[in-house]
Amino acid sequence: MSSSQKLIRTLRCKNRKFIGVLAELISTLSKWGADIGNISTVSFGELHNIRDITIIVNDEDHLKAIVSAIRKLPNVEVESVIDEVMEIHRHGKLVVEPKIKIQSLEDLRMVYTPGVASVCRAIKETPRLAEQYTTIGKTVGLITNGSRVLGLGNLGAVASMPVMEGKAALFNQFSGLHMLPILVDTLDIEKFISAVESIAPTFSAIQLEDIRTPDCYEIESKLSQRLSIPIMHDDQHGTATVALAALINASRMAKLDLKKATVGQIGLGAAGSAIANLIMKFTGKAVLGTDLNKEACERFKGLGGEVAQLKDIMKNCQVVIATTGFPGLIKAESIQKGQIIMALSNPFPEISSADALKAGAAFATDGSRVNNLLGFPGILRGAVEAHATRFVPEMYLAAAEAIVSETPAEELIPNPLDPQVHAAVTQAVAQAAIACGVTRPIKK
Amino acid sequence: MSSSQKLIRTLRCKNRKFIGVLAELISTLSKWGADIGNISTVSFGELHNIRDITIIVNDEDHLKAIVSAIRKLPNVEVESVIDEVMEIHRHGKLVVEPKIKIQSLEDLRMVYTPGVASVCRAIKETPRLAEQYTTIGKTVGLITNGSRVLGLGNLGAVASMPVMEGKAALFNQFSGLHMLPILVDTLDIEKFISAVESIAPTFSAIQLEDIRTPDCYEIESKLSQRLSIPIMHDDQHGTATVALAALINASRMAKLDLKKATVGQIGLGAAGSAIANLIMKFTGKAVLGTDLNKEACERFKGLGGEVAQLKDIMKNCQVVIATTGFPGLIKAESIQKGQIIMALSNPFPEISSADALKAGAAFATDGSRVNNLLGFPGILRGAVEAHATRFVPEMYLAAAEAIVSETPAEELIPNPLDPQVHAAVTQAVAQAAIACGVTRPIKK
Repeated sequence: MSSSQKLIRTLRCKNRKFIGVLAELISTLSKWGADIGNISTVSFGELHNIRDITIIVNDEDHLKAIVSAIRKLPNVEVESVIDEVMEIHRHGKLVVEPKIKIQSLEDLRMVYTPGVASVCRAIKETPRLAEQYTTIGKTVGLITNGSRVLGLGNLGAVASMPVMEGKAALFNQFSGLHMLPILVDTLDIEKFISAVESIAPTFSAIQLEDIRTPDCYEIESKLSQRLSIPIMHDDQHGTATVALAALINASRMAKLDLKKATVGQIGLGAAGSAIANLIMKFTGKAVLGTDLNKEACERFKGLGGEVAQLKDIMKNCQVVIATTGFPGLIKAESIQKGQIIMALSNPFPEISSADALKAGAAFATDGSRVNNLLGFPGILRGAVEAHATRFVPEMYLAAAEAIVSETPAEELIPNPLDPQVHAAVTQAVAQAAIACGVTRPIKK
Repeated sequence: MSSSQKLIRTLRCKNRKFIGVLAELISTLSKWGADIGNISTVSFGELHNIRDITIIVNDEDHLKAIVSAIRKLPNVEVESVIDEVMEIHRHGKLVVEPKIKIQSLEDLRMVYTPGVASVCRAIKETPRLAEQYTTIGKTVGLITNGSRVLGLGNLGAVASMPVMEGKAALFNQFSGLHMLPILVDTLDIEKFISAVESIAPTFSAIQLEDIRTPDCYEIESKLSQRLSIPIMHDDQHGTATVALAALINASRMAKLDLKKATVGQIGLGAAGSAIANLIMKFTGKAVLGTDLNKEACERFKGLGGEVAQLKDIMKNCQVVIATTGFPGLIKAESIQKGQIIMALSNPFPEISSADALKAGAAFATDGSRVNNLLGFPGILRGAVEAHATRFVPEMYLAAAEAIVSETPAEELIPNPLDPQVHAAVTQAVAQAAIACGVTRPIKK
C-alpha cells in the first residue's frame, strides 16, 4: 500500500530582484506539473535572492524537463538540484548508543566486568529476568530478504535497508521500544526461516517485512509455529488492520452496515488476501475475491473466501477493495451507485477517487491515505507488553477498532503522527491478547 | 581475561548521630573483608543520618556475613541492600532510536514512503551506496551463542546479553560506530555459521564473542573465508593485542629485548593461543607453550609454536604468560630471577604479582589490568574505515604498537577510557590494512 516512484528534489534558484520573477518561476513549475512544497529563502542579496524550492516530480525525465524549462527563464538561474531525501539518509537513519555514558572506571565495573557477571548469573538462574535486565524485553526484530520492496520488486536485502530503517525509526518514535533491522540475504525459504529462528532469542517479537508472495505465508506460519514470540508480516496484517479501520469509517460515512454488506477484494496478494481475511473475521461473512494468480485464488478459498469474476464483484458488491498494482483497472462504467471503492494501489490507483465518485460511488479513497504507520507500532508494542506468544486475528481486529475510535469525525483515518492513536492501539492489542489467552504468565 | 564472581552492593545505612558511629561501621566493613567504594549521604536528620556505602564482596555468603555483622552494631540500622549493578541494567544498556525525529507529514515523506524509494533504487543500482546512505556502513554485529561467557562457562545466548550490551555500549562510546548484539541460540557450529552468514549484509564487520573452544576457531575461520567483511573473535585477537601491548611495555620496564627473548605460554585456550601466536608474529621466534588439552597443543604446533613441559617453560623462559584459569598454578619457587610474569587468569591469577616479585621476577602483573576495552573499538573501527575485507595479524600488531605508543611512562597500559588511545588504534589498524592490501577499492 505504500510505494511510489516519485522524486522529491529541492531547486536552489538565484533570482534577479525584479518584480514578478518568483511568480513566473512558480507558475512555470506548476505548468510543467511539479508538485510544489516548501519555499525557503537562503539569502537576500543586492541584485539577487536565493531560494530553495522543494518539488515532487514523477521521475528523472520529468525533473530534467522542469529544470530545463526554468533555465530558459531570463532572470532565474538554477544553482543546484538538491536531493534532500538522499541527504537525510546519509549515514542511515538510526542511532545505537549506550543508555549511560561510561565516565569512570567505577562505571565500567558496573556495566562491564566484574559487575556484569552477576546479572548474567541471575538471568541464567531465572531466564525471565532477561526481559527486565537486558534490551531483549524491548526489542523487536525487523527482518527482510528484500524480495518485495515497496512496489519496486526484488531489490535484495541491502537495497531494502532504507525502508527498514525508516520503519525502525518510526517504530521507536511511536512505541518507545526498539526495532533492529536485520537483512537476511537469501531467497531460500528454509534458510531464511532457520536464520530467523537462530537469532530469535535477541528479540521479544519479530516483524517480517517486504518478503515476496507466496514465500511470506510459509515463512510467517512456520516461524509462528516454531517460536513462542509474536511474529507479524506487516505487509499482510499491518496493512489489513489499517485498511479495515478505514473501511469501517468509510462505511459509517456512507451509512452502510458493513457486517451485512457484500465485500469484494480485487487482488489477492499479501495485502489483498490479508485484508479480505480480516474483513471476514470482522463480518463473519465470506468475501468475494479475484486474482490472475491461480495459487492465490486457491489460498483464498482456504481462508474461507469465495472466488468470483472481476465483473461480478463490481456488479454485486457494496464494497470493492482493489490491491492489484494495475492503474486504471476499474472502469468508471463498472461502478455501481452507492458503492464504497477503495482503490489502494500506489502511487496510481485502480480508479481515481474523483472518477469513482463521479460514476456514482458513495465513497472512494486511494492508497495514499491508508498508512501502515497507523498500525505496526501499537500492534507490536501491545503484543510485547502483554507477553503474547503469538498473534491471533482478534488482536488485529482490536487494533482496527482502536484506530476507528481515534478517528476524528468526517475523517477516513486519524493522523498517523498522533501519539494518542498508537497508545490506543497498544492498549487494545494487549487486552485482546490477554482475553484470547495467548500470553505467557507474567512473573515478577 | 575479564571475568569475576565478585558482587557489587550498596548498603543503605541509618546511623544514630553519635560521634564515631560511621567510623565503627567502616572499620567493621573493612574487618570483614569488604572492599569499600563510594560513600554518599542520602539524608541528614535530627537523630539519624542515612548513607549509601558501596562495597565489593566475594559472594552472597560473604555479603550475608557482612550485613549480619553490621546489624549487630548498636547504632547502625541496615535499611536496604541495593544491587546497583542490577539497577543500572534495568531495561538494558543500549538505546536504538531515530537520528531525526519525525515532526511532520513532510518529514515522513522523506524518511519513509514515497521518498525512501529513491534511496532504495540508488542502492540497487550502485550497491556501494549502502555504506553511505544506510547504517550498514557504521554497524558492527556482535554475535555470540553464549557458550563461554566470561569465566562462567556455557550460560547460553540469553544470559550472555548483559556482557554483549556492555561491549556494544563501550564500542559506541569509543568508536562512534554502532554495535548490534545478536544472540544465536545454537551450539551447532554449522548452524551458527549459516545464521551469521545469512544476516551478514546487515553489517560492515563482525565481532564474535564468548564462544567456547575449539568451536570459536572453526567459526572464525569459516566465516572469514565465506564473507568479505572483517571478522574478529575478540576473546582471541582483542585479548592478544592488549596482552602484547602490555608485554612490550613490561619488557621495556624490565629492560628486556623482547624480540630476542624466549617466551612461554601456559594455557593454550582461545586467549592463550592467540597471545602466543601474536607474539610469534611480533618476534619471529617460536613461543614455548603447554596445555593439558592435547588438541590445543596440536593446534599450537600448527601455528608454529613449540610444545614444552610446564617446568621447562618456568625454567627456560624470560617471559612467562599464563591464561589457565587455575589460581596458584605457578609456585614461587619456580620463578627465575629477572623473569617477566603475566599471570592473567581472572579474578584469581596463577601467582600474585607480589609473590612473583618477591620470588625474583623483574616484572609481574595479573589480568585485572589487561583490559580488552583497549583493543576492540579501535581495531574494528580501523578495519571498517579502511574498508578491510578481512583481518591479518599485521593489523593486530599495529594496534598493539599504537597502544604501546599511547602508554604513559611507567605504566603498563594506558587508561582504557582515554579517547586518544582508541583514535590511535583506529588509525594504526586502518593504515596496516591498507599497507597489507586487504581493503576493497574505495569508490565515491
